[in-house]
Amino acid sequence: MKIVTLKEIKEILGKIDSIKEIEKGFVEYSNGNVVVPPVGEMIFKDPPGDVHIKYGYIKEDRFFVVKIASGFYENINFGLPNNSGLMLLFTQKTGELLCILLDEGHLTNIRTAAAGAVVACYLAPKKVNRIGIFGTGVQGKLQLEYLKSFVKCNEVIVWGRSQQRLDLYKEEMKTFDFNIETTLNAEDVTSTCNFIVTCTPSTSPLINSDQVMKGTHITAVGSDTPEKQELDAKILQKADRVVVDSISQVLSRGESFHALEMGLITEEDLIELGNVIQNKKLQRASDDEITVADLTGVAVQDLQIAKAVWGKIC
Amino acid sequence: MKIVTLKEIKEILGKIDSIKEIEKGFVEYSNGNVVVPPVGEMIFKDPPGDVHIKYGYIKEDRFFVVKIASGFYENINFGLPNNSGLMLLFTQKTGELLCILLDEGHLTNIRTAAAGAVVACYLAPKKVNRIGIFGTGVQGKLQLEYLKSFVKCNEVIVWGRSQQRLDLYKEEMKTFDFNIETTLNAEDVTSTCNFIVTCTPSTSPLINSDQVMKGTHITAVGSDTPEKQELDAKILQKADRVVVDSISQVLSRGESFHALEMGLITEEDLIELGNVIQNKKLQRASDDEITVADLTGVAVQDLQIAKAVWGKIC
Repeated sequence: MKIVTLKEIKEILGKIDSIKEIEKGFVEYSNGNVVVPPVGEMIFKDPPGDVHIKYGYIKEDRFFVVKIASGFYENINFGLPNNSGLMLLFTQKTGELLCILLDEGHLTNIRTAAAGAVVACYLAPKKVNRIGIFGTGVQGKLQLEYLKSFVKCNEVIVWGRSQQRLDLYKEEMKTFDFNIETTLNAEDVTSTCNFIVTCTPSTSPLINSDQVMKGTHITAVGSDTPEKQELDAKILQKADRVVVDSISQVLSRGESFHALEMGLITEEDLIELGNVIQNKKLQRASDDEITVADLTGVAVQDLQIAKAVWGKIC
Repeated sequence: MKIVTLKEIKEILGKIDSIKEIEKGFVEYSNGNVVVPPVGEMIFKDPPGDVHIKYGYIKEDRFFVVKIASGFYENINFGLPNNSGLMLLFTQKTGELLCILLDEGHLTNIRTAAAGAVVACYLAPKKVNRIGIFGTGVQGKLQLEYLKSFVKCNEVIVWGRSQQRLDLYKEEMKTFDFNIETTLNAEDVTSTCNFIVTCTPSTSPLINSDQVMKGTHITAVGSDTPEKQELDAKILQKADRVVVDSISQVLSRGESFHALEMGLITEEDLIELGNVIQNKKLQRASDDEITVADLTGVAVQDLQIAKAVWGKIC
């Protein structure tokens, strides 16, 4: 059994095509080859935090994964990172523990950013005028970084709640070839961007339906509980395509959950990302379409990234 | 963050009153102070195995636990132990990982055996003539070992499917002060024992209802999935008291699950162990009673044992 530290994991990640691994995972998932039981969840109130346990396996494969990831949104006040966690990889034939990936939540961040890139591949408008990012945290940075190869656009505007954190974002991202503006006003993003990624733990909509212009794509990655919500549910009703990472999961969490609960869309309106990848007809068909991708995070992503890391050390 | 090996855990266990810690946990649980979400489960068919993820926390406490435990019942053929697993202890305020207990399933075995001892405390007949054990595995041995202080009886009969394993059991248990007989015939146990513990992964009943004599207590610890079953469901109907570790859990797993599904008992017939501990009226009232304890294993046990180990190392 191997214990792998965050430092080692970061080195290994340089040798892995995470986006490809995650894409493969979504295909296996939507093809019905993956067993992903319901997400385990603990919600804490004081201080506010959530813990998710995601676990599963690909049938006829050698492994299963158990991933624990937490978000405690006041940790920043104690000088601790908000997100943390670890991944455990086991053998499917004996239950033996193969490795503990002490990734401190980093692999969850990476596999989430990689999913954003996969979405961009199939749903981004041909010509992106400007990229809009909601959220100044780790995911807000990673999403932009991972989009680089898939969205040919260097113009970026980032929305945040604090000018200080926006300035920090801009500072930290200057090693990349982006021209970044910042704003405290969501309208500045929606009125100038046709490719938007929301990456916040918000529990109330950041974007209203009437703000969304024709031809816009939005990837919402922040909401992974029933409580969290970044988009006005009417946006999903207005959208020409609503793509989700897992139909079964969004019945109880994420953006779609709210739209479904309000009767604005039905389960039949949802398209699974793994199917979009495989079927050109399910991908963006014109530059006028409004498309939304609702990513709640599926255990198969954790499995794929853990397996890829393991593949480089075993 | 500390990583604790099985060897270290075994040393620490000598300094802990596991039974007392587990008893406290059941009390907290039945008093409604514990959050235990539904058990996470993966069932594998080829080779047969099950993985359980149990997790939870006591409100107003400092910790939460995530425990992964597996049973792969053909591992013995590969020279590997059937049971394995690990426990993870986190802080409730920040989600920080405090320690990884690489117990290889041992702490699950210990907290299960400790629960058996707690049950014996409150439900064993005053005079036990002979102790009957079903199962020759680790749990079959531990249950007997942990009963020592609570059941004043040295006469034991053990049932198993293989004479070789029965002989091994007898050999391994000879350091304890028990007079152990073995049998391949369940009737030999039920006709001579008024205190029986079943500790097998059986998926069909080992004891029939008409075999159970007046005054017998049975603790069933083997069934922790919807599939596993050690007792004829009619035994629960026949029993004067059916005590369970967790009412919400036995609605979908364990012995009670089968009896409930067949309509032989109702949820109202079930008494929770944490209440039995606190209320003399719920404990065995006479030597004529038939009592059954159905233990499916609750995360609060994992929490209690992990906390106790942590308390000796932090």
